[in-house]
Amino acid sequence: MIGDRFPEWLDQRARLTPDRMAIRCRETIWSYRDLDSRVRLAAGRLVEAGIEAGARVAVLAENSADLAVVIHAVPRAGAILVPLNTRLTIDELVWQLGDCEASLLIADEWQRTRAANAAAQAGLPAPLDLAALVAPGASSTAGDLRWVAADDVHTIIYTSGTTGRPKGAILTYGNHTWSAIGSALNLGLHAGDLWIAALPLFHVGGLSILIRAALYGIGVEIQRGFDPAAVNEAIDRGGTIVSVVAPMLERMLDVRGHRGWPPTLRCVLLGGGPAPADLLRRAVAAGLPVVQTYGLTEAASQVTTLAPEDAIRRLGTVGKALFPTEVRIIGPDGAPVPPGVEGEIAVRGRTVSPGYFRRSVERPDGWLRTGDVGRLDVDGYLTVLDRRDDLIVSGGENIYPAEVEAVLRQHPAVLDAGVVGAPDPHWGQRVVAFVVVAGEELPDLEAFCRARLAGYKTPRTFVQVEELPRNAAGKLLRSELRRRLAQGG
Amino acid sequence: MIGDRFPEWLDQRARLTPDRMAIRCRETIWSYRDLDSRVRLAAGRLVEAGIEAGARVAVLAENSADLAVVIHAVPRAGAILVPLNTRLTIDELVWQLGDCEASLLIADEWQRTRAANAAAQAGLPAPLDLAALVAPGASSTAGDLRWVAADDVHTIIYTSGTTGRPKGAILTYGNHTWSAIGSALNLGLHAGDLWIAALPLFHVGGLSILIRAALYGIGVEIQRGFDPAAVNEAIDRGGTIVSVVAPMLERMLDVRGHRGWPPTLRCVLLGGGPAPADLLRRAVAAGLPVVQTYGLTEAASQVTTLAPEDAIRRLGTVGKALFPTEVRIIGPDGAPVPPGVEGEIAVRGRTVSPGYFRRSVERPDGWLRTGDVGRLDVDGYLTVLDRRDDLIVSGGENIYPAEVEAVLRQHPAVLDAGVVGAPDPHWGQRVVAFVVVAGEELPDLEAFCRARLAGYKTPRTFVQVEELPRNAAGKLLRSELRRRLAQGG
Repeated sequence: MIGDRFPEWLDQRARLTPDRMAIRCRETIWSYRDLDSRVRLAAGRLVEAGIEAGARVAVLAENSADLAVVIHAVPRAGAILVPLNTRLTIDELVWQLGDCEASLLIADEWQRTRAANAAAQAGLPAPLDLAALVAPGASSTAGDLRWVAADDVHTIIYTSGTTGRPKGAILTYGNHTWSAIGSALNLGLHAGDLWIAALPLFHVGGLSILIRAALYGIGVEIQRGFDPAAVNEAIDRGGTIVSVVAPMLERMLDVRGHRGWPPTLRCVLLGGGPAPADLLRRAVAAGLPVVQTYGLTEAASQVTTLAPEDAIRRLGTVGKALFPTEVRIIGPDGAPVPPGVEGEIAVRGRTVSPGYFRRSVERPDGWLRTGDVGRLDVDGYLTVLDRRDDLIVSGGENIYPAEVEAVLRQHPAVLDAGVVGAPDPHWGQRVVAFVVVAGEELPDLEAFCRARLAGYKTPRTFVQVEELPRNAAGKLLRSELRRRLAQGG
Repeated sequence: MIGDRFPEWLDQRARLTPDRMAIRCRETIWSYRDLDSRVRLAAGRLVEAGIEAGARVAVLAENSADLAVVIHAVPRAGAILVPLNTRLTIDELVWQLGDCEASLLIADEWQRTRAANAAAQAGLPAPLDLAALVAPGASSTAGDLRWVAADDVHTIIYTSGTTGRPKGAILTYGNHTWSAIGSALNLGLHAGDLWIAALPLFHVGGLSILIRAALYGIGVEIQRGFDPAAVNEAIDRGGTIVSVVAPMLERMLDVRGHRGWPPTLRCVLLGGGPAPADLLRRAVAAGLPVVQTYGLTEAASQVTTLAPEDAIRRLGTVGKALFPTEVRIIGPDGAPVPPGVEGEIAVRGRTVSPGYFRRSVERPDGWLRTGDVGRLDVDGYLTVLDRRDDLIVSGGENIYPAEVEAVLRQHPAVLDAGVVGAPDPHWGQRVVAFVVVAGEELPDLEAFCRARLAGYKTPRTFVQVEELPRNAAGKLLRSELRRRLAQGG
């Protein structure tokens, strides 16, 4: 019996439509035959290098066609893919490599030195050079179609936690497959679709584009970094869907000026946290088919997305659940609340991660409690009101205050610290730290943080205070800090 | 944990896009909200009538919007849907009702008398009137989203067997879901798609349209019976996909004359057995986007289908496997044969039935042996050469010689009988019977058969012979009969 299994995406896709374009990246254009042949070769090299089934293989690289090969090759070799954020510091990388007990780190030329450093500190062998891993060679011929189990682990992606350290969210083949199916059932699937990936492929938002494309048999235009003019140019060259976060969309509109958008562009999928209403209106006025989505790493990207026909009518909401998922709002007593009432957003369904790597999961009823606050209207449209547990979202990156506070408290002069997000017209939010220090003057906390935290997590503003607001149980009241900020400090 | 479960198609669809058109049939136009509300009401009535979970509920009805309600309502009530072919005789109906141990028969006004007759003979209660079951009334409000397990049985569809009696192929929610997903991954999914169902909804080819539509959120135009002008008109009114068998397509082209086809029509899905090359060429010349498919009841409809871009380049083949399935050609020794070599077509994957109702299934490796003969070319395209076990395909209906021969042998004057298909320019094949009779003259075997067999199974020609060709073991050599026919008798 087949059971809950299905063909591996790329393997089957290369058999069904080998001649369709799979990847475009600068001068590179690969068909699915080309991509699969490269993946087979790279996977073979990983197996030869002694990578065992289920081993965690971390990858630290900027967007490139070669990175797409590695993203498919690691699971093809039977290993679990751990994509690392290239903006992390060495300390952060070392911690994640240790937490997932990685067997190997693969790094591109831009990350080579940092990767070598991190691998050495984590007690790993020297990083494998990404370019060498995907270098041309004699590929083996395709064997039997590879079937994978829905429960097999495909990816571990670190997502910042409330306890000060990121957690490795496990995503299975089933999670990714149903996410891709759910997205197609909402956004449709057209012959000749070309999805522009300008988001980092190490994020679930970028990674999921590669997976969808293989399942759908459509092309991906991979962009190195984010250049608004380059994304606009890719749209003009026939890109039909593009995934963006609010600051990206804003810059794309800025550089576009008054030029219109081609009719081939059928969806601008806007994720990465609440978008300013002004930006939404501006995009719609410019004729962009913007569709808002609410996504989570723990749910393999999209949780809810507006249906295209509702994009304007329901502007500002993030739509309804994908087909294979269900969304509820939970009240303080843990029971669902009626429409219109605020509460915690909970999700269940085929896209929801079974848990965090090596951490027990308590989810007997299948509902993932997101910690985010929202409400459903009577028609079932979700509005996200506040991100989970004081989460700060800046330029599409999630930042947990607890992680930044823990670093600040490591400074010998810092007695206490509280971190919140302040509204930022461009990035959505920016990080602000309130600190209690020993002595009169503020030490150079920005340099201290920058050495230990990814740049996007580093506070832009430090506010010295006598003491931090805490409740009777000693719990930091970040809402009080946000209130003070709103009142001008 | 959710496990291998997903939301019930229509229930989730009515929550996600309640305002989209679900069904159009003559004057009736229903949104998904309308359809779901009617289904909820009818399902409630079935439960009130004492239908238990897992009970088999047979349905004998011509295509109508109301039949669509019942098709969704029976599984919604927790029962298993058994759609019956309206062309069957009373004897055949009684046999199938008995074999599936039906608890209830639902019949429309056109089938009322026959249904009452069959139900009485099968020891069932009087049939439930389909119109009464779906009559307007106060529908309960929707409760929690209904999740179904992939392994839950949704349908039992009788398919003629080689042993003289039809067998009830079990189709699960998983089979139907993956079939619909596989079809969308090949044919695409457009906002505003409208699938024309002119095939009987009691066949898997028609039934699967309703299921796909609910999963996709697209409309179905249900046609009563087959009227080529009405199908063409539905195409002119915006139908984007239409499922047909060869004789239907031929008549659609006949009545169309030299008028072109609207650009909204994006796919003519041609199934129901090998299509004459002339017809394919004629359809392509007329500008019809014909895509051939090879389907099986046991695989929830499509097994292989041409990709749209290959429709003309690979004309005459039936394409490649759907994404969640795999096709092989098996040699006489049971092992796969190389490309270009003929053998038995075998299928495995998520769309393949777990077996026949109350019959053990021996399929330890998951491969369904179809009995059909075909070959794969080096690129993986399937060509079907001969249908399974002397199967006769006439006007898209499958006829097994053994079933017709068994009826003929019941006639007191018939000593032996052999049945084969003869080529027919309109129906693909027609049924021819070779008979050995006691006495000089042929009795009226056509009337005898017509009383016991659906009209399409009744031989059109009877050839009196001295004896039938049999091998040493006594096995009837139908190939020899076909050879004689080809030589003019």
